[in-house]
Amino acid sequence: MLTGIRVVFIGGDARQLEVIQKFSELDATVILIGFDNLQNQFSGITKAKLSSELLKTADVIILPPVGTDDAGIVESIFTSEELRLVEEHIASLPKHAKVYTGMAKAHLKQMCAKYAIRLVELFERDDVAIYNSIPTAEGALMMAIQNTDITIHGSVCMVLGFGRTGMTMARTLQGLGAKVLVGVRRAEHFARAKEMGFTPFYTEEIIENVYYIDLLFNTIPTMIITAQVIANIPHRAVIIDLASKPGGTDFRFAEKRGIKALLAPGLPGIVAPKTAGRIIADTLSQLIMEDGITGRNRE
Amino acid sequence: MLTGIRVVFIGGDARQLEVIQKFSELDATVILIGFDNLQNQFSGITKAKLSSELLKTADVIILPPVGTDDAGIVESIFTSEELRLVEEHIASLPKHAKVYTGMAKAHLKQMCAKYAIRLVELFERDDVAIYNSIPTAEGALMMAIQNTDITIHGSVCMVLGFGRTGMTMARTLQGLGAKVLVGVRRAEHFARAKEMGFTPFYTEEIIENVYYIDLLFNTIPTMIITAQVIANIPHRAVIIDLASKPGGTDFRFAEKRGIKALLAPGLPGIVAPKTAGRIIADTLSQLIMEDGITGRNRE
Repeated sequence: MLTGIRVVFIGGDARQLEVIQKFSELDATVILIGFDNLQNQFSGITKAKLSSELLKTADVIILPPVGTDDAGIVESIFTSEELRLVEEHIASLPKHAKVYTGMAKAHLKQMCAKYAIRLVELFERDDVAIYNSIPTAEGALMMAIQNTDITIHGSVCMVLGFGRTGMTMARTLQGLGAKVLVGVRRAEHFARAKEMGFTPFYTEEIIENVYYIDLLFNTIPTMIITAQVIANIPHRAVIIDLASKPGGTDFRFAEKRGIKALLAPGLPGIVAPKTAGRIIADTLSQLIMEDGITGRNRE
Repeated sequence: MLTGIRVVFIGGDARQLEVIQKFSELDATVILIGFDNLQNQFSGITKAKLSSELLKTADVIILPPVGTDDAGIVESIFTSEELRLVEEHIASLPKHAKVYTGMAKAHLKQMCAKYAIRLVELFERDDVAIYNSIPTAEGALMMAIQNTDITIHGSVCMVLGFGRTGMTMARTLQGLGAKVLVGVRRAEHFARAKEMGFTPFYTEEIIENVYYIDLLFNTIPTMIITAQVIANIPHRAVIIDLASKPGGTDFRFAEKRGIKALLAPGLPGIVAPKTAGRIIADTLSQLIMEDGITGRNRE
């Protein structure tokens, strides 16, 4: 339980509702900033305006998955007012307080570092990335079904990368009966892909492997689907790029050649906000309980 | 090969292009009626207007998957003119000619019966129904991902019916990591579902099994998802009814209770027209070759 812990949520989207509910169930003292339009009333929860006065009493700050932008703006679908986190706010936090977000931009990192406030990026964690790979793969699958005139069953799919998302993507396609080629860079990934019934190849040999593919899923965040690769892909093929922006595809060349190429970052929050919210809620609450932050830490 | 066989296509949609291509490759003499706007030129194929004169020389007539409506109208997305098959046309066919379609309505059946012209309904065949269940299941899966805020992985899915489509649907969901309950009526289906790792139950006990489901897929073409069933489904659940129109769901009551219920017939032609076309093309060409119809059958 989190009895006595003061948890301040600043902004967010549908995912944050699952997190708020979880913290409320764990008996934390929950304060919501930037949720004025939220209809869904949780019991025993306070809404407030963003102020240094309020933040002085916080044990935990929870920002949305994308944190702040480089001007400190926090997105919230639950308010029409601008939420802007400035140095003064971070400066006012007690020393033991921790800030949690999905991914932090440089601006937020710098502010926290300056005032020695610990910042935790959830999406950096392997477990969270693996859990998030499930809605990502399902979203990519949905896009594949929508954007082809063939079935995934019996199609030839290529997955580039066999990390946290690549393995899930390959398994999802295999589960539907696709033939799956997996592009890897490491010998142990080659071995694991082979053991799992995929057809592995080393990414240096990508050109030799793309001639007959129907679908190409990329999870590698560097330019891998180059113009040269695209020139050798069948015209019917569809590229779905799951790597973080700007992806690993030469989109300009794909367009020029008339090959459908889709950049699809942030799928969990789009296709399964409830599941994505639960992933964050479960991980965050466990982390905070393990951290042993209690109301007594406060001076 | 089908050298010398005169195959007349009357109307159709994107699926028919695969069939036309296959028959052209097999060297049949292909005549297209109702394809005036078709850009895609196949070599050695003739376009014509619908006339009794032309039909006198036909060995095989291929209608679209839905055949004709009850007034004899044949749908074609490749023409702006009305295509209407009347008694005179059927009467003019040579005795050895066969008419192929997906499903025939009463009107077409009566006309063919009256003039002793053999009519073959492809979608009645078990093999075709099993092949078609693949795009059906993928289309249903796409709808499920689109219409829920959770992942299929880890969700509780119920599939009603364990026939040609039900088994494919259950396997597809299992492939993504769902927990799958299967409602059956026969002991051998119960046994097979259990062997395959599903959780079978008899459909008489449906009420006792729907309390915790997230998704309900129906393949049984009689009223099975009654008001009483719907009253016991969690509010978050989504019903996807794959049975032929009018489906097996009390849609009126689902709407009244605010439960999302979607009737989704004809998914193969929508989500995977190319695959659906190939299924028809492969089956039709094999059937006609086995039939041993040749140009010599003509007087």
